[in-house]
Amino acid sequence: MGKSADKYLEVWDWGIRENGFHREKNRVSESLFSLANEYSGVRGFMEECPAGADSLIGCYFNGIYENHKKINETAYKGIVKRGHFMVNSVNWLKTKVIIEGEPVDATLNVVSDFYRNLDFRTGVYTRGYTVNTEKGKVNLKLSRFLSMDEPARAFQTVEIGADCDIHAEIIMSLDFNVLHWGKECYFEGAQSRFGDDGCAITARTLSTRQRVTSAMAVEAPEACACRDFCEGKEAGKVFSLELKAGETAVFKKFVVNIAERTPQGDSLSLALKKCAESKAEGYEKAAEKAESYWRKFWSESDIEIEGDAENQQGIRFCIFQLQQTYHGFDPKNNVGAKGLTGEAYSGHAFWDTETYCLPYFLFNNPRAAKDLLLFRYHTLENAKRRARELDCKGACFPIATLSGDEACDLWQHASLQLQPSTGVAYGIWHYVNVTKDIDFLRDYGLEMLIETSRFLHSRGDYNAAGSGFGFYCVMSPDEFQMMVNHNAYTNFMAKKTFLFTLEAAAKVRERYPAEYAALVERLDFSPKKAEEIKRAADAMVILYDEKTKLFEQHAGYFDLPHIEVKNIPETDFPLYYHWSYDRIYRNDMIKQPDVLMFMLLYNGDFTFEEKLRNYEFYEPRTIHESSLSPSVHSILAAELGKLGEAVGFFAFATRMDLDDYNKNTSEGLHTTSIAAAWLNIVYGFGGMRSDGEIISFSPTIPDIWKSYSFRVLIGGGAVTVRVGGGKAVFERHGGEIEIKVYGKTVTLKDRLEFSLNEAGIKNEEKK
Amino acid sequence: MGKSADKYLEVWDWGIRENGFHREKNRVSESLFSLANEYSGVRGFMEECPAGADSLIGCYFNGIYENHKKINETAYKGIVKRGHFMVNSVNWLKTKVIIEGEPVDATLNVVSDFYRNLDFRTGVYTRGYTVNTEKGKVNLKLSRFLSMDEPARAFQTVEIGADCDIHAEIIMSLDFNVLHWGKECYFEGAQSRFGDDGCAITARTLSTRQRVTSAMAVEAPEACACRDFCEGKEAGKVFSLELKAGETAVFKKFVVNIAERTPQGDSLSLALKKCAESKAEGYEKAAEKAESYWRKFWSESDIEIEGDAENQQGIRFCIFQLQQTYHGFDPKNNVGAKGLTGEAYSGHAFWDTETYCLPYFLFNNPRAAKDLLLFRYHTLENAKRRARELDCKGACFPIATLSGDEACDLWQHASLQLQPSTGVAYGIWHYVNVTKDIDFLRDYGLEMLIETSRFLHSRGDYNAAGSGFGFYCVMSPDEFQMMVNHNAYTNFMAKKTFLFTLEAAAKVRERYPAEYAALVERLDFSPKKAEEIKRAADAMVILYDEKTKLFEQHAGYFDLPHIEVKNIPETDFPLYYHWSYDRIYRNDMIKQPDVLMFMLLYNGDFTFEEKLRNYEFYEPRTIHESSLSPSVHSILAAELGKLGEAVGFFAFATRMDLDDYNKNTSEGLHTTSIAAAWLNIVYGFGGMRSDGEIISFSPTIPDIWKSYSFRVLIGGGAVTVRVGGGKAVFERHGGEIEIKVYGKTVTLKDRLEFSLNEAGIKNEEKK
Repeated sequence: MGKSADKYLEVWDWGIRENGFHREKNRVSESLFSLANEYSGVRGFMEECPAGADSLIGCYFNGIYENHKKINETAYKGIVKRGHFMVNSVNWLKTKVIIEGEPVDATLNVVSDFYRNLDFRTGVYTRGYTVNTEKGKVNLKLSRFLSMDEPARAFQTVEIGADCDIHAEIIMSLDFNVLHWGKECYFEGAQSRFGDDGCAITARTLSTRQRVTSAMAVEAPEACACRDFCEGKEAGKVFSLELKAGETAVFKKFVVNIAERTPQGDSLSLALKKCAESKAEGYEKAAEKAESYWRKFWSESDIEIEGDAENQQGIRFCIFQLQQTYHGFDPKNNVGAKGLTGEAYSGHAFWDTETYCLPYFLFNNPRAAKDLLLFRYHTLENAKRRARELDCKGACFPIATLSGDEACDLWQHASLQLQPSTGVAYGIWHYVNVTKDIDFLRDYGLEMLIETSRFLHSRGDYNAAGSGFGFYCVMSPDEFQMMVNHNAYTNFMAKKTFLFTLEAAAKVRERYPAEYAALVERLDFSPKKAEEIKRAADAMVILYDEKTKLFEQHAGYFDLPHIEVKNIPETDFPLYYHWSYDRIYRNDMIKQPDVLMFMLLYNGDFTFEEKLRNYEFYEPRTIHESSLSPSVHSILAAELGKLGEAVGFFAFATRMDLDDYNKNTSEGLHTTSIAAAWLNIVYGFGGMRSDGEIISFSPTIPDIWKSYSFRVLIGGGAVTVRVGGGKAVFERHGGEIEIKVYGKTVTLKDRLEFSLNEAGIKNEEKK
Repeated sequence: MGKSADKYLEVWDWGIRENGFHREKNRVSESLFSLANEYSGVRGFMEECPAGADSLIGCYFNGIYENHKKINETAYKGIVKRGHFMVNSVNWLKTKVIIEGEPVDATLNVVSDFYRNLDFRTGVYTRGYTVNTEKGKVNLKLSRFLSMDEPARAFQTVEIGADCDIHAEIIMSLDFNVLHWGKECYFEGAQSRFGDDGCAITARTLSTRQRVTSAMAVEAPEACACRDFCEGKEAGKVFSLELKAGETAVFKKFVVNIAERTPQGDSLSLALKKCAESKAEGYEKAAEKAESYWRKFWSESDIEIEGDAENQQGIRFCIFQLQQTYHGFDPKNNVGAKGLTGEAYSGHAFWDTETYCLPYFLFNNPRAAKDLLLFRYHTLENAKRRARELDCKGACFPIATLSGDEACDLWQHASLQLQPSTGVAYGIWHYVNVTKDIDFLRDYGLEMLIETSRFLHSRGDYNAAGSGFGFYCVMSPDEFQMMVNHNAYTNFMAKKTFLFTLEAAAKVRERYPAEYAALVERLDFSPKKAEEIKRAADAMVILYDEKTKLFEQHAGYFDLPHIEVKNIPETDFPLYYHWSYDRIYRNDMIKQPDVLMFMLLYNGDFTFEEKLRNYEFYEPRTIHESSLSPSVHSILAAELGKLGEAVGFFAFATRMDLDDYNKNTSEGLHTTSIAAAWLNIVYGFGGMRSDGEIISFSPTIPDIWKSYSFRVLIGGGAVTVRVGGGKAVFERHGGEIEIKVYGKTVTLKDRLEFSLNEAGIKNEEKK
């Protein structure tokens, strides 16, 4: 794949740890040590250090965004004139530590014993180091964590000790002088207020007029002198301290951040009040709650891998970060492509949330899965506007967004990629297929499906002969084939969308006839329109060669000039930077596997042989430049008995950020890829499939592992799957349930055990 | 075509005239009344009027350009990071006329008897009007013309008379405070100097550091008081005058403009000196020279149409403007898409110069035709750099340029359109085919051909089977099909380029073996490389259906959804503004006729039936949104006996600007379309073809015309063709020559006469 690992962290089951300061990896560490609680996120920057190393001080709030300053007034119709982006907000961690008049900076050479530590079991990020001053050694330890159940709350501690008497000043503040993308501050009109104990500051975004308010209170050693300060967009407290040799002073900062999309009332008072409550409750209580949150979480969602410490760490990192990013706190939130860990991709949620992230929530936290779909429902009007901009009907969901409006100003993507819309339909289908939640269809799902189908129907067209329906001038998830006709993924997924819309309509009509009648009237979804959709679905062109059993990725794909992907030098990657832009598009090289993707999503629709043939044809043509590509391959490789390949792709997905495979972890984490890593275990080695009537499993295990286990919520209870020692053991918590194991339907009540041979033989013989 | 005429000018054989002030057409008039002499151009703006009507004060110099301020640093490889544009330069006509303290403005309501007049026989643009002041009527007449043989020279007169005594001030100046695109001045460092009689000013462009210097001297009535003035970037003279009732005062301004791409020496002195010489020679002498230039020109290049005053005016307007724009004064010049008449299209010369403009020069002024090709030779290094940017070899000529560098920052066009390169090769082929100038091949042509073929060979590719060569991801001249494979025009023209490169190599090798050997060694053009080109030419995919005799515009075109072009409402045009950008691309509608174009360029390669079938298939799918489309159709329609259609398309091309069909003449003239109008007569009704061994003619005449005539230079002499009264009469000036008439080879010595029936019958029976 032309990618290489870049390892510098300690391998540790339950967290990540950097020993010694890796200057050139500082931004990467900032991303990896990010904390978040869906409501807000903060990069793992060193709050007390000036700019001694390349750094991105980033504090973000879900849904707080700004519009681009530049408006492209001359853009053609349908091209986004003004994008928006998640904006870097108040630095609520800002700290200065001044020892004997000298500010401390961990990035300077006078420092030793540097470490960073993020413990997945507590959610606490801790850093420490020793400053070697002229008078003696000063030890600093800083830690922070975010409340998971009261997400406005955040906590920071600074501990200082020394082997000599020293004079120290600790300055703790809230600072809106933060530069987005290192360039511009998008907050204005800062106001601050000092209360009995704490202080608060508030400011508004320039064009969206959203509001962020931050309040702090500090529990400081009694001997400290303290004074307030406020300067422009910054407010805080200065503590002065005479520290004796051998003593340690601890400063505990209680922070409350209030992010308002629609500001209301006196946020400064509110924040000060909440902050006082937080301080009154105390630091230890908050830390205990956080730990207990994570303890419960891991007891329900952990994946254990015995015999592969690196991947054990990798998969837990993924699960931890995914949970931090999103867990269904607010149905107006979505999952950003970089989570809340950086400004790259503008903080946008991309089209693939429903495809790659939804399953994790569906089987761990179904309410969060529903919330994720509700984000689309809440932004349905935006999608309808977008469809009209494109001269189409219905609702066209965005390739990238925060607000619900299309934020991608590259027309190639925003106008040609239809997978956001088919992806939403797929998400609804998947959710309903697993949960059987017909009420969701009635209240939200069917409306989204009808509008989506209506869009697709108006965007698609019949060929010249009138015999085949399909999509012209599309860019599929494989972005290396820009403007093609009858792309297999697009046509296939649109067909599924059409058919599921009709099926969902039938289900709701049957169960809730009155509500159904009202809905179709409101949406003007006549039987004639349903008939048109049926006709298009039936006429959908799916390019398939009976002889070779290959799906053709798009009309003419098989005729394209061939490139030997494996002969491309590693130095040519990423191709976008080293190849002339258009050169990428004019051969049979693909970025990610369109055909394999729909064969994975609707796995049961295809025979083993079809999957094998297509895998073996397309994989060598795939450059895997998309971070999602390896996961799809890993899962299918496991199904096809290619366990060696499956493990190779798995490690890549699971440790993509930890080992900085794409050389851009510095910009933020790859959240969707992180979600896909979970898929790799559960759908890959666990062989789970959720596209049939009942959930099925076909576990396998790579040779190098001793055992692994995972847990999924199905039918109102949990199923734990433990694989190893030649067996797969299924345990049920909750009432009995029907599942399929190795193709056979079984009733799981408490515990069932299967020999792995059944899988092993099945796969080996097909190789 | 969804286009309508907008007529407001007087119909006049030998010029254009606007009677009365058409406020809403002021910018259109400014374009139509433009003057130029290849070296410089000036819009027909009213130099004495402030901004009383929408106006673009535009003075341009060929080759004087600026770089865009914005540099797209993040553009992908191969995408132009910084464009350049012809920059609006010194306003050398600036005038103020102040009567009794009030500045005159022809756009105000106190004016009557307004007219503008441009006489094609003299090249003089005159305006006049009466200002109705409180004291009485004041008559103003202003005129200007450019020297054609000493192009730095320009002339302006201001005449003022009154039916009452008045006090008048006339201020004449040279002004660099000119705003490009109405926004920014790109000149700095202005210096001025006053000589014994005249004054001069010079300034430099901001980033390209080119220099423009302008000098003026005025012949004023003796009674005038005169003082110099200089203010910032403006220098000039103020004349005060007491005018008696019934008297007329005339001010004659002698201007010299020096435009330097590479500034050298003291341009202020030089300009002052040249200006003094011009004044010494006198205004009348200069006017006489200009008239004599145009008299000679019309005697050689006129096209007469009897019986159609509108088209007579139209075609002469075209010829006049084309000659003004370019006539081979400097081989470093090219023909801008808007000539020197406006800032739209950035003053760029587009890819189609060699295809559409070259023939006019080839048959009127072969030296200019050669110069036009030399522009490409002089910019061969730029084209080689561009090819490397695109990861290709050889030379890739730009879609739009002034400097030789690609100036188009839309990658769709700059990276996907290969017709600039095949167009240069076509131009060389056409030039050599007509002139038999093998020395040109030896000195310039073969090198360009080899580098062009090398580029095309590296940009093209073999299909997956290795059996067919062609071009993937191209946009052809038909810009409504963006990213297609095996486009018929691209593949066909590339095949011709390959074959002609080999043929040219053989010709030079045979005639000049030593020079040939040196050349191929310098260019590293080995026999193996020639062989590769031959193989690609032989394997070139030309999609052709034997049964229908249709060429398929690109792979898959015949399968595209069909649009009934004639059902698109006129209000939807231009489609770029009213349709979602991507919607334009996903159907079988085309903007201009790729297939018909190569059938016109290599006319003899195709049968009458092939042309007919393809015309009848593609024309109804053509939107003619390109200004060149109607010309191609007009010519082919004439050949196919569809004279009614031919006339319809002809009028559109010939009067495109006069009648503002595209509603954008305000931005400047459509120079390439103007050139194509000439083709419409000569190749269209005259039926001339120049792609065979000898020149052939098959004249026809539309019913509505009484007669028409044109003249072409062939084989060192002229052939005049006069068609009408049932006959086509050919007259030769120069030695005897072989031509074909109606398919039969004849020797033309003095005069030959043919019955038109031969043509009429031929075409009618095939209909």
